[in-house]
Amino acid sequence: MTSFTNTRKVRIDWGDCDPAGIIFYPRYFEIFDASTALLFEAALGMTKFEMFKRLEFAGFPLVRTQAKFFRPTRFGDDVTVESSITFGRSSFEVLHRLTLKGDLCAECNEKRVWTVRDAGGRLKSHPVPEEVLAKFG
Amino acid sequence: MTSFTNTRKVRIDWGDCDPAGIIFYPRYFEIFDASTALLFEAALGMTKFEMFKRLEFAGFPLVRTQAKFFRPTRFGDDVTVESSITFGRSSFEVLHRLTLKGDLCAECNEKRVWTVRDAGGRLKSHPVPEEVLAKFG
Amino acid sequence: MTSFTNTRKVRIDWGDCDPAGIIFYPRYFEIFDASTALLFEAALGMTKFEMFKRLEFAGFPLVRTQAKFFRPTRFGDDVTVESSITFGRSSFEVLHRLTLKGDLCAECNEKRVWTVRDAGGRLKSHPVPEEVLAKFG
Amino acid sequence: MTSFTNTRKVRIDWGDCDPAGIIFYPRYFEIFDASTALLFEAALGMTKFEMFKRLEFAGFPLVRTQAKFFRPTRFGDDVTVESSITFGRSSFEVLHRLTLKGDLCAECNEKRVWTVRDAGGRLKSHPVPEEVLAKFG
Repeated sequence: MTSFTNTRKVRIDWGDCDPAGIIFYPRYFEIFDASTALLFEAALGMTKFEMFKRLEFAGFPLVRTQAKFFRPTRFGDDVTVESSITFGRSSFEVLHRLTLKGDLCAECNEKRVWTVRDAGGRLKSHPVPEEVLAKFG
Repeated sequence: MTSFTNTRKVRIDWGDCDPAGIIFYPRYFEIFDASTALLFEAALGMTKFEMFKRLEFAGFPLVRTQAKFFRPTRFGDDVTVESSITFGRSSFEVLHRLTLKGDLCAECNEKRVWTVRDAGGRLKSHPVPEEVLAKFG
Repeated sequence: MTSFTNTRKVRIDWGDCDPAGIIFYPRYFEIFDASTALLFEAALGMTKFEMFKRLEFAGFPLVRTQAKFFRPTRFGDDVTVESSITFGRSSFEVLHRLTLKGDLCAECNEKRVWTVRDAGGRLKSHPVPEEVLAKFG
Repeated sequence: MTSFTNTRKVRIDWGDCDPAGIIFYPRYFEIFDASTALLFEAALGMTKFEMFKRLEFAGFPLVRTQAKFFRPTRFGDDVTVESSITFGRSSFEVLHRLTLKGDLCAECNEKRVWTVRDAGGRLKSHPVPEEVLAKFG
């Protein structure tokens, strides 16, 4: 089993928050989506844009996500997102833990599928390439 | 047990979609959040804005959400969202089923807490008011 | 000069609003972008998705926008967006007027360029096709 | 006349981009809005959240914005946003210049009004406090 973790800081902005003054939760999924891309960037040394050019890769669409929200965050908060990946054959799971000053605020588990384009240009799942797994070592 | 269903049409817009040409999944949660508000509006006969004014109510923050994505949707698609609510004491669950031409594309189960403000102005959970439950029949 | 107007209703949602309780202004641009697509749909009888398939068309990227905000709108508001287009040769301008109960809340003037893909797959400006102009007649 | 400049880096994310593979322009306004908040944070040494608590301040809503888009940016791009402010009496203007590797991609000029709450809780414009102007030197 291959596992790998990446951590980053994110600022919660005014525009991320709703009339209750706390983050509007779909923004968390924007943060988690970018965190998954950055986790790959940390391991592979290339951006998602470069992944499309250099790898047998047509995206890793989400097939399932589960999230729990423990404490709200607010604009001006600098939160930490710790993302850990575990690979299956043609899919992988990422666990995101979002904390503020050490307190867990949200947790998200997502399952994604590695895809390539078939002859007709359609997305189909495909085993994660060996060269990718190797970088996650 | 109280159950109630509301159905609406939503257009998927260009700006909801990502470079793969399909919906960027955090947009689904924006759709589901608005669908929950509209479900309350359908039952109560008032907008969420009016709920803040007329009810003992300070929002219904999400504590958990689970979603599965079966088929992608694209800009120009007119999807149907069917939302069903089931009440607990101080919380409720909403199941959203998003379909395109009858095919299930995404499904989401969310759990929310009914809140009011305490003396210090902070959010706290509170039993869903009887007058609200009555409207959901 | 060709001119054409389309009008639609838009609900301002909770998630469109910020901690001041009013719409977060980038959401207006999401509304205006979709309004331009719907204006074309009204005239051409096809969605933007279909435009890519059926027309010599690779998008109409924005080159300039100007907006003024007169009165805020709030979640639960059902606003009206009236969009009028005027064509140049390879570009066009759209004026969006957003009103609530007859009061002008925001006004936006956008300039866009009609584009096609060149041999190398890059976007380049191109005269708006005659068949498109004819539909706006 | 008081002028002050702040510069920051922003990553353009996958979810910021549309089916053309380039940034969906309303995302630029999210970036510019946060850039204005960060400009104040750089000068005042407090977040926007703290400004609400410590200053005579109820937000600085936008009354007008103008933007020009010269070159598209794409997911994975690390752009630079240079924001310069000039104060009037109860209003101020911010010029944002967004560049990628030195090339100007977008430029935005926004006018905002400093507001406070009146006795009835409504927003009204108010001269920018002396203590704020002093920090901008």
